[in-house]
Amino acid sequence: MSQYRVLIDANDEKGLVHKVSTIFYESDLNILSNSEFVDKENNKFFMRSVVDGAIEKQTLIDAIEAVLPQDSTVKVIEPKKKNIIIMATKELHALGDILIRHESGELDANILAVISNYDKLESVVSKFDIPYITVSHEGLERPEHEEKVMAEIDKFEDIDYIVLAKYMRILTPKFVEKYESKIINIHHSFLPAFIGANPYKQAYDRGVKIIGATAHFVNNNLDEGPIIAQDITTVDHAYTWRDMQKSGRDVEKVVLSRALKLALEDRIFVYANKTVIF
Amino acid sequence: MSQYRVLIDANDEKGLVHKVSTIFYESDLNILSNSEFVDKENNKFFMRSVVDGAIEKQTLIDAIEAVLPQDSTVKVIEPKKKNIIIMATKELHALGDILIRHESGELDANILAVISNYDKLESVVSKFDIPYITVSHEGLERPEHEEKVMAEIDKFEDIDYIVLAKYMRILTPKFVEKYESKIINIHHSFLPAFIGANPYKQAYDRGVKIIGATAHFVNNNLDEGPIIAQDITTVDHAYTWRDMQKSGRDVEKVVLSRALKLALEDRIFVYANKTVIF
Amino acid sequence: MSQYRVLIDANDEKGLVHKVSTIFYESDLNILSNSEFVDKENNKFFMRSVVDGAIEKQTLIDAIEAVLPQDSTVKVIEPKKKNIIIMATKELHALGDILIRHESGELDANILAVISNYDKLESVVSKFDIPYITVSHEGLERPEHEEKVMAEIDKFEDIDYIVLAKYMRILTPKFVEKYESKIINIHHSFLPAFIGANPYKQAYDRGVKIIGATAHFVNNNLDEGPIIAQDITTVDHAYTWRDMQKSGRDVEKVVLSRALKLALEDRIFVYANKTVIF
Amino acid sequence: MSQYRVLIDANDEKGLVHKVSTIFYESDLNILSNSEFVDKENNKFFMRSVVDGAIEKQTLIDAIEAVLPQDSTVKVIEPKKKNIIIMATKELHALGDILIRHESGELDANILAVISNYDKLESVVSKFDIPYITVSHEGLERPEHEEKVMAEIDKFEDIDYIVLAKYMRILTPKFVEKYESKIINIHHSFLPAFIGANPYKQAYDRGVKIIGATAHFVNNNLDEGPIIAQDITTVDHAYTWRDMQKSGRDVEKVVLSRALKLALEDRIFVYANKTVIF
Repeated sequence: MSQYRVLIDANDEKGLVHKVSTIFYESDLNILSNSEFVDKENNKFFMRSVVDGAIEKQTLIDAIEAVLPQDSTVKVIEPKKKNIIIMATKELHALGDILIRHESGELDANILAVISNYDKLESVVSKFDIPYITVSHEGLERPEHEEKVMAEIDKFEDIDYIVLAKYMRILTPKFVEKYESKIINIHHSFLPAFIGANPYKQAYDRGVKIIGATAHFVNNNLDEGPIIAQDITTVDHAYTWRDMQKSGRDVEKVVLSRALKLALEDRIFVYANKTVIF
Repeated sequence: MSQYRVLIDANDEKGLVHKVSTIFYESDLNILSNSEFVDKENNKFFMRSVVDGAIEKQTLIDAIEAVLPQDSTVKVIEPKKKNIIIMATKELHALGDILIRHESGELDANILAVISNYDKLESVVSKFDIPYITVSHEGLERPEHEEKVMAEIDKFEDIDYIVLAKYMRILTPKFVEKYESKIINIHHSFLPAFIGANPYKQAYDRGVKIIGATAHFVNNNLDEGPIIAQDITTVDHAYTWRDMQKSGRDVEKVVLSRALKLALEDRIFVYANKTVIF
Repeated sequence: MSQYRVLIDANDEKGLVHKVSTIFYESDLNILSNSEFVDKENNKFFMRSVVDGAIEKQTLIDAIEAVLPQDSTVKVIEPKKKNIIIMATKELHALGDILIRHESGELDANILAVISNYDKLESVVSKFDIPYITVSHEGLERPEHEEKVMAEIDKFEDIDYIVLAKYMRILTPKFVEKYESKIINIHHSFLPAFIGANPYKQAYDRGVKIIGATAHFVNNNLDEGPIIAQDITTVDHAYTWRDMQKSGRDVEKVVLSRALKLALEDRIFVYANKTVIF
Repeated sequence: MSQYRVLIDANDEKGLVHKVSTIFYESDLNILSNSEFVDKENNKFFMRSVVDGAIEKQTLIDAIEAVLPQDSTVKVIEPKKKNIIIMATKELHALGDILIRHESGELDANILAVISNYDKLESVVSKFDIPYITVSHEGLERPEHEEKVMAEIDKFEDIDYIVLAKYMRILTPKFVEKYESKIINIHHSFLPAFIGANPYKQAYDRGVKIIGATAHFVNNNLDEGPIIAQDITTVDHAYTWRDMQKSGRDVEKVVLSRALKLALEDRIFVYANKTVIF
């Protein structure tokens, strides 16, 4: 008996639920949960089912692919710990939240390593017996530094996600393409959004009453990748920009951990620069 | 071509999605949206589909019933304005929110009448050309008063929901049974919950930092029926209990309107004193 | 015995609280509430006190002004209903919320008139015996239309606030300057903010998980005036842009009413394009 | 030059702000922030000021006490790291959040020790070089066990707060009295509140749509002490009670850390079983 997460991404046409559920039924699979969504505007069909039964994984994939329209994607995933690499710079809050969740067994992931351009967080990461790799950008051009980072990443195999837990350097298109759909970032995103240096200072200057954070996949539009999760907190005139930053950090860590959990449970579909989340 | 909302409530068994979706497919129905939920603990299956096609309503019901286990419930509903009666006492906020939504065409309902034990809200309700019926409880025993209310309600036909928009009288079991599953109430429910007279005063005395509201179906456990929607707002030490009441009213009206919208769109299943909401 | 709201806006210097509270004490005034805020960065001092006692208003102003630094502002306001004009276009939600609050006696304001560029909302506004003035922009240049609007506004006296309850036309600098610090607007502001035509469609296309609204004073930076209040609601992939718009409207009306209440209670200071709210 | 937090708790009478601010002024103190609150119902006055200047602490206390009514309380506190002891049982989430904040230098506290009735969390606490003391309750009566806990606590000096980070044992009145006003607890408090064993199971059975958490000081009314902070998160029918527990834990840790921060900054007054928070 195996449990599978079945993820289907297809152009919509009549009968898809019928066809797929017939396969489940005839394969004597037990459906533990089932979600579908049809985007009428883009004519897209998404389905995520958790099933268990005595079928081979490849047999199930083949059976489903046979009934779907062309250009469909079927993933059948056996639940297991995913491999993640965390990238950070100097701030502990988002990284620390992941470390504690990992320690308490709540996170369905192996943390292969933490990579940073500073050694500042090494002592705390080492406490958790997780490799900490410092790749200083000091004196290096951006592409040069990134080559060194990629060289470190590539020492590991089967990486599922690269989590940017306040990694404060801009990634080059080369990096983003190489790990396409695997990079999750947390962005201090406000109402209205502030881009560029010291966003909390900008938010303070603007006199906002709410600050927020956005977790998203990274693509080559800076801070413009598919949004996974967002949340906010309230502030008022008595907050200095450093107070706003502190409050913002509390939101950032919550939102990033929430997004990571969704990814680890294979609940996210990406299309049209958006996410469908079951 | 008709559009139908199909609501299925059944004991769970293997193949239900397959069986129902096969009927949709073979009846050449187009699935506009589809949601399922299985409660493993209680072995219950819920499904809500919106479909369109050229099938007779009764034919569709018969076809689905034929494949479901015994003791299942199938509803096939054609979207149309539902008939509601609103009951109120003296406070306008929750009633007023519904009146404005109705006026702006946002509410998929006909308001047949507003019934109150006071005439205080008559002038505003009359502005909207909605019948206002005062049934004073003055000098009447509770059962006697309620008989008169029920007599007024029963002058109307095909009532879908009775909305208690801050109706401040306790209903007898007789009333609740008569309109079973049709009565939606808004309850000032706090953290922790305060029951009895002047809940906002109680909340103030307790020094809460959050106040909330709960919309629920009414059954014969007072304030204990299936919860449809809840929300909260924050308060602090500078709030008097009247300030808390004002903030509470803003939450009450929002939560009641949200619950009513869900009911009017046939999105709510009730079982085990809980709701499943699609 | 009179009650006064005392509002002080001054350059900060040592002893301001001492000096002002000494005047209150020596004038035998009772302090009902008292709030101060010092913005260290801008060296600004703000104070709002509610006092009662047997002093003449002008005497109190003179006494306070005598102890403050140059270029300070002192306002002493007797609590009474303020005069507001509401401007709208075709949408009822924000206007309707204000009308119901006004009807229930909750709003400390006289609504002098509702002015719109369409007659669509006339029937509902008239129900409440509030003048409705249609100033069509049909066939008129913007300045020409606005002159007609201002002519209508100027038929009223002692206007405290002009509330833009989804008034969908851009105001000229002339209009904004004329009613400086008096215009409150509600803006559909998102994470990230979307400016321009059909913001809800833009938000939908961006795949946001949160939508929000911002109430602000209007100055001559479009949608960039001092923020008074903000709030948000959550959405997901199943929301069409029209669903987002509906949810957004619920936030808009709540936020606008909250901002209006703060203004009517004289709780807002404006400086440096920001607000201090007590 | 010293910085002081001045906390005044007095019966209200006319002129208190005047009298205290006059002392600040005549002592040539600079007011960095200042908050007052008057509870009219209970005739109580609260004031928190942060000042700096060249005065002796005791001189300042004496000067203020001289002008206040009898039975007033004045505290003048020099900002410094407070000493805290954390008590936990088996769950890491709330404790872990505090450990990470402490590690990142964000928490203005020395963690003297973590005391638990199990050794489960020892390995993670030890990573942070914080003493971990296991006091097993195995085979002991409650008073007997507590005596051993108190003996461990009393090995430390100058304890400011005892933080119950999911310490799952009921404290006796003796313990609570001994550390009066020093014990901060995090309580899984729901809408409506669920008391007793497995509250998340109770909440699940009740079908709530919101779960929350409450941080409060502990007094001898179980779970009924003065509330410091509360927050909530939303859930739906698809949450099992274990899912609710997971979401609840995320709220618990946020709320406890928020309450602890307020305590460490001396922002909380307690009276009438409520808190005033500046």
